[in-house]
Amino acid sequence: MKKVAILGGTGNIGEGLARRICLGGKFDVAIGSRGADKAQAAADGVCACLKERGCTETTCTGGTNADVCSADILILSLPFERIQSTIDTIGKSAFENKIIISLINPMVRNPGEKYFLPDQPAEGSAALAIEKMLPASAKLVCAFNNVAAGKWMELDEELDYTVAVCGNDEEAKAAVKELVASVSKLQPLDAGPLAMSNVIEGITPLVITIAMRNGLKDVGVYFR
Amino acid sequence: MKKVAILGGTGNIGEGLARRICLGGKFDVAIGSRGADKAQAAADGVCACLKERGCTETTCTGGTNADVCSADILILSLPFERIQSTIDTIGKSAFENKIIISLINPMVRNPGEKYFLPDQPAEGSAALAIEKMLPASAKLVCAFNNVAAGKWMELDEELDYTVAVCGNDEEAKAAVKELVASVSKLQPLDAGPLAMSNVIEGITPLVITIAMRNGLKDVGVYFR
Repeated sequence: MKKVAILGGTGNIGEGLARRICLGGKFDVAIGSRGADKAQAAADGVCACLKERGCTETTCTGGTNADVCSADILILSLPFERIQSTIDTIGKSAFENKIIISLINPMVRNPGEKYFLPDQPAEGSAALAIEKMLPASAKLVCAFNNVAAGKWMELDEELDYTVAVCGNDEEAKAAVKELVASVSKLQPLDAGPLAMSNVIEGITPLVITIAMRNGLKDVGVYFR
Repeated sequence: MKKVAILGGTGNIGEGLARRICLGGKFDVAIGSRGADKAQAAADGVCACLKERGCTETTCTGGTNADVCSADILILSLPFERIQSTIDTIGKSAFENKIIISLINPMVRNPGEKYFLPDQPAEGSAALAIEKMLPASAKLVCAFNNVAAGKWMELDEELDYTVAVCGNDEEAKAAVKELVASVSKLQPLDAGPLAMSNVIEGITPLVITIAMRNGLKDVGVYFR
């Protein structure tokens, strides 16, 4: 069984993502965190959920962010501001040749005036900036960026969104599309090179703004 | 009857847009072009189409870009590169207090490698750059950016897309939402301030890329 590690997996999105991936039945999950205890507690919660739902195909373990990096695919589920220090702590070499997913969308929040806007670094996107922090052999792919955060943990609801997947390594992108397709009813779509992350990351503040201004909840995006 | 002028209305999108707006039955249309004859010919084509389809509520006329600027709403249906010279030719004062729609999406086309990318000016978007070219009293709104170009002229097909509408003047945005809602089954959504145009304009190269890479045609975007 292939394994996916979720770095920063004890956050809200991370824990929902871990459940959803395990429940898909195709990938084991390792939750990473700064503290191994916290990660283990989160993993225990996922295992309890799997048991409750009769899912026996997959398992979830926990460890420090460094511990879990042996997995086949690493998901960065951390605020953009913490990526550089997390890579420094783990050591850059742990990311050599790895398939790495960024779902990070830096945003300026302005709920008082009912809008969020992208707040991307000078490189054009979080993903393009993270690419520079990683070894050249790492294969960075964007995916899962636009799934409404609140939906990950609502396990009784199917996720039927289309998911734009972009990156510069076609094999890595194919592996990530396989992962995306294993989760609920998500439909992965090849969205071209990593430079497209500039647009994909921006869609999240857009859909949040649309939700706030049009009396909608958990707005998602569908390309069809 | 309120009137919408389409500057650069003899292009492919412009002519489809003119037909769709007239067929909506709520707005007359004036097609603008550099040459009045060309605009009149395009308007005659729209009128013939309206007659054929039994639409008697609305009409379409043609004139130079300067001629048609007395309309209630002006749509800029021109390549970004031609906006400044068009405003210079018409004279900036014609745009005082006007509601103006930009549907412009500057793109880098790379069909050989199967992707298009945004190619936005330093201001962050075409709309933010155009705002600086217009008088301060002009009210610029983005709308219609992401409707697949090929769909405008396929009049037998309903357009059921959601349309993100952004701008800094709430009244102007409400007027534009009314226009959007009059066209086929388009659903306008308030997408916040004009700064959101950075994201909205980028969605067009994204959906074109998704279409090219996933064997799809005329991909649209739905926020729901």
